[in-house]
Amino acid sequence: MRAVVCAEGRLTVQELPTPTPGRGHVLLDVTRSGICGSDLHARRHADTVADMAARAGYPDFMRMNQGVVLGHEFVGTVAAYGPGCRERWPLGTRVVSLPTVAVDDKPHLVGLSAHAPGSYAEHVVVQEAMTMAVPDELDDADAALTEPMAVAWHAVRRAEVGRGQTAIVIGCGPIGLAVIAMLRASGVKTIVASDFSPGRRELATKMGAHVVVDPRVEDPWDAYSPGRNELRSVSDLLGLGVQTMGRLRRLPARFPWWRVFRLAERLHAVPEGPVVFECVGIPGMIEQIINAAPLRSRVVVVGVCMEPDTFFPAMAGNKEIDFRFVFGYDPGEFHDTLTMMANGRVDVSPLITGTVGLDGVAAAFDALSDPEAHAKILIDPRSSAETP
Amino acid sequence: MRAVVCAEGRLTVQELPTPTPGRGHVLLDVTRSGICGSDLHARRHADTVADMAARAGYPDFMRMNQGVVLGHEFVGTVAAYGPGCRERWPLGTRVVSLPTVAVDDKPHLVGLSAHAPGSYAEHVVVQEAMTMAVPDELDDADAALTEPMAVAWHAVRRAEVGRGQTAIVIGCGPIGLAVIAMLRASGVKTIVASDFSPGRRELATKMGAHVVVDPRVEDPWDAYSPGRNELRSVSDLLGLGVQTMGRLRRLPARFPWWRVFRLAERLHAVPEGPVVFECVGIPGMIEQIINAAPLRSRVVVVGVCMEPDTFFPAMAGNKEIDFRFVFGYDPGEFHDTLTMMANGRVDVSPLITGTVGLDGVAAAFDALSDPEAHAKILIDPRSSAETP
Repeated sequence: MRAVVCAEGRLTVQELPTPTPGRGHVLLDVTRSGICGSDLHARRHADTVADMAARAGYPDFMRMNQGVVLGHEFVGTVAAYGPGCRERWPLGTRVVSLPTVAVDDKPHLVGLSAHAPGSYAEHVVVQEAMTMAVPDELDDADAALTEPMAVAWHAVRRAEVGRGQTAIVIGCGPIGLAVIAMLRASGVKTIVASDFSPGRRELATKMGAHVVVDPRVEDPWDAYSPGRNELRSVSDLLGLGVQTMGRLRRLPARFPWWRVFRLAERLHAVPEGPVVFECVGIPGMIEQIINAAPLRSRVVVVGVCMEPDTFFPAMAGNKEIDFRFVFGYDPGEFHDTLTMMANGRVDVSPLITGTVGLDGVAAAFDALSDPEAHAKILIDPRSSAETP
Repeated sequence: MRAVVCAEGRLTVQELPTPTPGRGHVLLDVTRSGICGSDLHARRHADTVADMAARAGYPDFMRMNQGVVLGHEFVGTVAAYGPGCRERWPLGTRVVSLPTVAVDDKPHLVGLSAHAPGSYAEHVVVQEAMTMAVPDELDDADAALTEPMAVAWHAVRRAEVGRGQTAIVIGCGPIGLAVIAMLRASGVKTIVASDFSPGRRELATKMGAHVVVDPRVEDPWDAYSPGRNELRSVSDLLGLGVQTMGRLRRLPARFPWWRVFRLAERLHAVPEGPVVFECVGIPGMIEQIINAAPLRSRVVVVGVCMEPDTFFPAMAGNKEIDFRFVFGYDPGEFHDTLTMMANGRVDVSPLITGTVGLDGVAAAFDALSDPEAHAKILIDPRSSAETP
């Protein structure tokens, strides 16, 4: 089969043997495969990522000196089963799959490990248990986006955006845009999006953002009506305490004001800030958000910053900022995402800005460096297109 | 009145005019005042703290070139009321107070601002609305610890330690020890504490820690029995996904496994790590915790690190670590704390390792640099003790 192999930072199309599915594995004919920001990063900095993955307990992330078939976002049709499968789907069924496959009883990341070649190829091997049939309503191109959309769905679920709480999305790359779509699908009333690129801002509107700002012109933190009592400063917080206690003390002396205080807290009189989604992933973003955010903001860190980053913990303390770092998704979330896309609650088609064949992957990687031109580029292994 | 004034890093006992309570204010005769780590820090680095407080919206934090009476942890008796008070407590009533006072309609931090002299003095002015009567069961020395214990109570409430979840307290200074006491009072079943100092470890046991470790000898992360499914590595996480899905796929084909998945999640089959309390507050602690913590740990940052700190966001992402930065308390929590101390749910007396008069404050500041000798030193303005 033809496949794109990444080695020493170079992407080359090679003729490889068609893989044989092992125990519990399925062989898929790949119909579409997405190019992910992680792939761009792994191409240039695989060793840095591998060192960190090893420290986090996954020692088999790809290395620069290995030849690895990339690709972990894909849709395909069932071509063959390995031994020990339930053979649940008839051959030819369209399926997506979580990109995890067990090889010699050890789980591996499909398309990001030399142990599990990915979907930049005519065929890919996945774990039967991880596959899900694609509903007829969903076309191949959209279905290939199940994986990145599941990343966003996981982030939105972990964010627990409260009723009436504002969401601020910093950075409208593919993951920021996916987060916007998932926030909209989950009914969040005010979604503010911020990006330097006009093209990305246009996509943010298409994906469902209510307010879209260019941070060079307008501060995203000023672009929405803050919550009724949102606190912008420590003085506000101290003042609220004095004010609340002053009011409670006008009640009769034996009135159990501290019970009222807890009730008021439950009724959201003690305000929370907005929920912020960091979708940029470069050093300095965390510090920038801490400095700009109102008190008691919750920051969901979706962007993957592989470099060391510096911030002032005391400043995060003064403002009682919460950080939730998010990673991946669980199988239930992957299934939720597929369902939401199939029933039309989420329309991902605006994200897809180009399609190439295997011979066009290197050009597609280059094209993705321009945020005006592209968001998500898909690979169709049967296409001969060399530019997206 | 006699008071300890901090200016240019020097502590001197001065004769100052007894303050007159303003509108809504009460004058207290101070009976005991606690020396807080923030006071030690403000003495040497007030300008750094003031710059950060200004950025967080409180522009009136004390400066090195000002003469400020320190002290924000105290108990005293009502000596006089200013105009516009409800005069709720008879003169002579023992009260504690949140250290916030409104001067010219602006709230200020008592004992940490030139606008609001603190309790290292014979008298202190506080806001009537912020005062609470001290129950008879509680002696003066213990009552003076209401404020730091409220900081710990707020941290424990914000931590939301789950049923059966382990708490790990890193650093057993006064705040770490207070956190241990509050965790114990709230019924947490396993409290692991870690500190380099034998004296502090002994206090940790007294305050209620179940397991106490010297991090030079034993890793606090290995010192407890992990939760049933606690995940130590990304491979564990991937493996759990494959395993779960493999099991679900043995069910009949049309079985709605994704509903079972959510149910399993609610039943805690998808495990959380421990709740970690960072009570050290020096650079490097966050990175150290990220590297050592199991997946899905929740880190409550109570220690105040005033310097820039560096960490790898991607590593926190890989492990899905949550950070909750905490600061202060609300009036309800302050009241909870006073009640818990009065009814014996929390015994703070082991924390108090010395008492000095106003002339002994400078010596007490020096003594507090040795963790073996002291935890909390109180000031009794009527005492003539010059060493703690």
